Amino acid sequence: MLYCRIPAESEANMQKITEITSRDNPAVRHYIRLRDRKKTRYAENLFVAEGLRIVLDALQYPCLVQQVFVTESAWEKYAESIQQAMQETGQCFRIPDAVGKNMTDTEHTQGVFAVCRIPEQKLQIDSRKKYLVLYQLQDPGNMGMILRTGDALGVHGILMAQCCDLYSPKVIRATMGSVFRVPVLELPDAPELLALLHQHQICSYASVPSAQALPLTECPLGTGSAVWIGNEGNGLPEDVIHSCRHAVTIPMKGGAESLNAAMAAGILMWEMMKS
Amino acid sequence: MLYCRIPAESEANMQKITEITSRDNPAVRHYIRLRDRKKTRYAENLFVAEGLRIVLDALQYPCLVQQVFVTESAWEKYAESIQQAMQETGQCFRIPDAVGKNMTDTEHTQGVFAVCRIPEQKLQIDSRKKYLVLYQLQDPGNMGMILRTGDALGVHGILMAQCCDLYSPKVIRATMGSVFRVPVLELPDAPELLALLHQHQICSYASVPSAQALPLTECPLGTGSAVWIGNEGNGLPEDVIHSCRHAVTIPMKGGAESLNAAMAAGILMWEMMKS
Repeated sequence: MLYCRIPAESEANMQKITEITSRDNPAVRHYIRLRDRKKTRYAENLFVAEGLRIVLDALQYPCLVQQVFVTESAWEKYAESIQQAMQETGQCFRIPDAVGKNMTDTEHTQGVFAVCRIPEQKLQIDSRKKYLVLYQLQDPGNMGMILRTGDALGVHGILMAQCCDLYSPKVIRATMGSVFRVPVLELPDAPELLALLHQHQICSYASVPSAQALPLTECPLGTGSAVWIGNEGNGLPEDVIHSCRHAVTIPMKGGAESLNAAMAAGILMWEMMKS
Repeated sequence: MLYCRIPAESEANMQKITEITSRDNPAVRHYIRLRDRKKTRYAENLFVAEGLRIVLDALQYPCLVQQVFVTESAWEKYAESIQQAMQETGQCFRIPDAVGKNMTDTEHTQGVFAVCRIPEQKLQIDSRKKYLVLYQLQDPGNMGMILRTGDALGVHGILMAQCCDLYSPKVIRATMGSVFRVPVLELPDAPELLALLHQHQICSYASVPSAQALPLTECPLGTGSAVWIGNEGNGLPEDVIHSCRHAVTIPMKGGAESLNAAMAAGILMWEMMKS
């Protein structure tokens, strides 16, 4: 055990750091299991985050962070900011750079890792608010970019069903910390989503790449709206489209047949949130 | 040499197919050099494209396609559509699946590859049109997504300087074929871009993540506009921002500090092109 003192701070800011030397340390092995296995993540209600910025973001919600791992090289650079952010919550491990290479999911790791608790789903649907719904979205990069964009544009919540795992390392990285800020609600399937939105008088708009649908330019996505985005390859299923109040489309003027799903979600959220 | 006949077509549609058996075949080695080396691409004015959809897109501009490679497995599935699209232009090689695995830049290849000519830059600036300018953008995925989005939304051209290579395999794949459709002009640096736009009375808008800039909701991006997007990490340099007529920003309502560069470009192009 080492005790490090942050300059000019009280005893309360002294942070315990545990040294780990082996890649076979149970905490390291646990991190790697959480990184690689969705089943473990949901059994333990934990997920992993990697990178200085996202770990500092996580530490703003202290009850969400269980453990922080910092490589020796990263400790030299970031010790002060990590210690200040930790405020005695969670465990902090210092690890050899070689162990960081085992733990990383990226090519060039910053050497900062955290085990975080999956937050409780607290999204309360409100008939005056505006939502995004993701159905069968499968690409982690798209999912992460959508969360980041929804956070930036101020969407009131993201509902989802049958998507890729929100807590996989790729999604978490692409969210750039927005996973800790955007209210999310996951339900088993489309009927449950439709029923919940209907119950709260939220009007569902299915986004489709079809010239027959209502052009976004003529479609008021006012209070009490939810825009649905479907799978990258197949879009939304016909029955879901028919269960939504309207089908809306981003008019295509050029040669491309469709927009990337994340880009379509971004433009729809922009139109919905800007007013 | 094999000669294959497309059903119910004339002699003119007979397509020569050359069999390649070795990964050391000069055409295969040439493909791999073009895939891996920017220098070779620009020395020979050629680049590579992989995937059925993008190769079929390329074949709509026959003078752009020099060679097509199809693996045996892909030939069984796609021979007819490839032969119809080829219309006697370019060379067609059939290769063993194992050689396709050497040529691919992806995890799961479709087994369809092409060597394409870099198109001449024909973008004519017109004072009544609308453009996107990319300056020091470095991520190939962003670059590709921006081209695809610009194509879909009908932007009149994309100008760029000091960006990642537009003809790298990652960019080409992410464009989903839009690289063959969107007019692009590459210049050495910002002063040349600014001078060209100024000369044609195009008003430049620097996009910045700053609350001091003009909010996009109050900014008419009318005819004769060009929106500038900067580097993913650093944005646009101060001198470029000052050389633009206005600084415009996408208002941030939530906790995320900024949008991904491709997403910002997409929302800006949407606002510019929708009217």
